[in-house]
Amino acid sequence: MRHPTTRRNVLLGTAAGAALAATAMTAMAPSAAAAPRGGAKGPRIGILLYDGFSMLDPTGPTEVLSRLPDATVTMIAERRGPVRTDTGDAALLADRSLKEVDRLDVLLVPGAGPRGTEGAMGNERLLDWIRAIDRHSNWTTSVCTGALVLAAAGLLDGHKATTHWASASYLQDHFDVTYVPERYVRSGKFVTSAGVSAGVDMSLYLASLLTDEDTARAIQLGVEYDPHPPFDSGNAAEASDELKRRALELLADSEASGS
Amino acid sequence: MRHPTTRRNVLLGTAAGAALAATAMTAMAPSAAAAPRGGAKGPRIGILLYDGFSMLDPTGPTEVLSRLPDATVTMIAERRGPVRTDTGDAALLADRSLKEVDRLDVLLVPGAGPRGTEGAMGNERLLDWIRAIDRHSNWTTSVCTGALVLAAAGLLDGHKATTHWASASYLQDHFDVTYVPERYVRSGKFVTSAGVSAGVDMSLYLASLLTDEDTARAIQLGVEYDPHPPFDSGNAAEASDELKRRALELLADSEASGS
Repeated sequence: MRHPTTRRNVLLGTAAGAALAATAMTAMAPSAAAAPRGGAKGPRIGILLYDGFSMLDPTGPTEVLSRLPDATVTMIAERRGPVRTDTGDAALLADRSLKEVDRLDVLLVPGAGPRGTEGAMGNERLLDWIRAIDRHSNWTTSVCTGALVLAAAGLLDGHKATTHWASASYLQDHFDVTYVPERYVRSGKFVTSAGVSAGVDMSLYLASLLTDEDTARAIQLGVEYDPHPPFDSGNAAEASDELKRRALELLADSEASGS
Repeated sequence: MRHPTTRRNVLLGTAAGAALAATAMTAMAPSAAAAPRGGAKGPRIGILLYDGFSMLDPTGPTEVLSRLPDATVTMIAERRGPVRTDTGDAALLADRSLKEVDRLDVLLVPGAGPRGTEGAMGNERLLDWIRAIDRHSNWTTSVCTGALVLAAAGLLDGHKATTHWASASYLQDHFDVTYVPERYVRSGKFVTSAGVSAGVDMSLYLASLLTDEDTARAIQLGVEYDPHPPFDSGNAAEASDELKRRALELLADSEASGS
């Protein structure tokens, strides 16, 4: 069965009632959709990509933050072009190089597997850029082992922070950082989040900081973030050693050797 | 504070105990990380990208499914190269063109904003390819309005399915499909999920179907998916008309006009 469809039909049912439909149809008219976005008004959000990053770390927050009114979200890497994930399966495009970006309202540093994390922690050009951006940012944030990269740049000294559960001891032992086992942690202008998927939770919090709670709630509804995982095994504090071992094996086995 | 770091240190604390560390260190040794992946053994998972897709729809499932033992996850589009999201802010790289892929164990069709969804629903080359792949797939799946694309290909006739809340009536009214307001819905070999973020929940379910529950649980722990959003507004069934209106406005305003 196939039917002709119009723009206003696809995303609009009748269940929500005529008032909703009328308003939303106006909002979805071509003139509104074609309006220029991300002018000087909205927050400039930059996401730093580096070889071996974990796919969900930058993309979960991008989904949320790119819905903020007038926001721009820009993928940035040492060089423009594709940057491949830890598993090697996929690549995101960096639209700007480090040299092309010298000011951001929000910096987000994603995490990676061991290869990518160590690569970023030892990359002085990357760390210099992070420090330079942080000098003027309103919020400097991370997902997963991105906190280790911020720490390696010397930004988290004296702060509390979180990271992937398997990197918690490393963060605490090697830096002047107090690890807090929460989904995301704010300490001054630094907001760090736990492993991989925690970036989605953090980005809704960031959305509320950048606008207001009502806007963040509307974005949550827009991306239908009403999580119901089929299992309840995401919390390391409740996991058996056996499950942790298996999780680390799967992460290690899925990491590509890199280019 | 900066310290030299070795691969086995970054992702391994001491808290989990010596047994865990010893096992995981072995798993993370360079020889294991460099082992060839995704041979004939594991599932071939293909994700169809098209202009205007929503970022989290393909990337959440990619994060989960690329952790499956020996799996390959491949980004596929009409042509190889960057495919840009609905907001225009970012692009994922398609590594294969439709012509280069004629067999998949799992097909995943992401959703998009109105522009992208309509574009895909009206693209006969895309729909032909979807039908051809579905003829041999073990699982044909969708996230968000990807269900409308599967329906437009004629695959969901007589099935129950889910989609983004704002597209539910459209799906039900225009196709021989029974909409079910759940996070993900299995009907025969079709697994559809609700809006955007629901793909993460669905992909853990798929992981358990493709392997076993223990493996899916370990992946959930690996990506630390223990969701705690700061707000509770992700469920459309509990949302006010005002919040729905605002959510649709934000989605519409953030959609780029396309290339």
